[in-house]
Amino acid sequence: MTRTHSIKTGERRGLMFVLSSPSGAGKSTLSRMLIEKTPGMRMSVSVTTRAKRPGEVDGKHYHFIGKEEFDAMVKNRELLEHAAVFDHHYGTPRKPVEDALAAGEDVLFDIDWQGTQQLREKARDDVVSVFILPPSAEDLEQRLHTRAQDSESVIRGRMSRATHELSHWAEYDYVVVNSDLGTAFGEVETILRAERLKRERQTGLSAFVRALQDQLQR
Amino acid sequence: MTRTHSIKTGERRGLMFVLSSPSGAGKSTLSRMLIEKTPGMRMSVSVTTRAKRPGEVDGKHYHFIGKEEFDAMVKNRELLEHAAVFDHHYGTPRKPVEDALAAGEDVLFDIDWQGTQQLREKARDDVVSVFILPPSAEDLEQRLHTRAQDSESVIRGRMSRATHELSHWAEYDYVVVNSDLGTAFGEVETILRAERLKRERQTGLSAFVRALQDQLQR
Repeated sequence: MTRTHSIKTGERRGLMFVLSSPSGAGKSTLSRMLIEKTPGMRMSVSVTTRAKRPGEVDGKHYHFIGKEEFDAMVKNRELLEHAAVFDHHYGTPRKPVEDALAAGEDVLFDIDWQGTQQLREKARDDVVSVFILPPSAEDLEQRLHTRAQDSESVIRGRMSRATHELSHWAEYDYVVVNSDLGTAFGEVETILRAERLKRERQTGLSAFVRALQDQLQR
Repeated sequence: MTRTHSIKTGERRGLMFVLSSPSGAGKSTLSRMLIEKTPGMRMSVSVTTRAKRPGEVDGKHYHFIGKEEFDAMVKNRELLEHAAVFDHHYGTPRKPVEDALAAGEDVLFDIDWQGTQQLREKARDDVVSVFILPPSAEDLEQRLHTRAQDSESVIRGRMSRATHELSHWAEYDYVVVNSDLGTAFGEVETILRAERLKRERQTGLSAFVRALQDQLQR
């Protein structure tokens, strides 16, 4: 990805890039590709109250914290979004995101529609949201089968959840259909590059244009 | 430019793509490149009351019409925007634009900030506006010199107009700095491709998702 002129003409404000999809539509793969291939983009690291699993690294996969600390963060409005899944709590700390945006870095969020709604409420102008659709029901079903050693009834449950998740596509700014991973990644990257060219994100432009005008009027 | 999945998943609504800049910043060259290289993009052809010049083709460069016909179009709201330059009147007919958008074609407008303001008032959600900035005052001055055999005072007048035009950059959705023509064209193309992926322009998605959900619930 080439760097934009905004770098040369001045500062830019980062953006919050949200990818959502029903599980099995390729969102996690696309997220990983974005982080690997895109300079100036980092993953948001959530806090969670659940126990660390083997192979997970504190501060990389999650920040593992206690329930009291989590509750304090909620109370002090230190989380941009949070949710409970079964007995465990998850949330996105606000400060690292705001620091990144101010430094001109983009932050990637791999979250569901409920998290996206909360982000939008807290930071509308900074949020760019993309919904990833599977190309067909067969494709989705196949991907859910391939990666799970679960019973048919568990997979049925997942399909039902996917159906519900799908119903939220219309709350997103952009929609990408993941028929082909390379094409879908190109489209996601195109959206990111275009959003970086939005006027309000190129924070050095006022000064740049003022300098141009001064020179023209000499 | 590759065709997007929106074609496969259903219909798309075209968009009104507006390029504006002070004269000399490369807008006309970028417009020509876009029309030549972008399938599904056409130029808006204006009506004008001025006389046809040598080499101009009626219906291609302009639709040449009389003042009475022009006034009737204004009165009947058949123009999306119009303006007077000296004694001549110019305007954008509404119908060909609306037909193109409904057919999934994009329409390119090479107009100034006054025309852009009128377009936005009439068709906000369909308008995507890009302001092209010159990389420096020297560059702009040089381009205005190169293409004109005019006197220093005429060029001074043009510079002063350019300064005024520049002041409207902040009314546009996107800003591209034209330091290098190839890079600037890539950025303009990226903006167009991303805007085609906007949810509300992929008009076949509701039906596509409904079909997906039906299949998942079988």
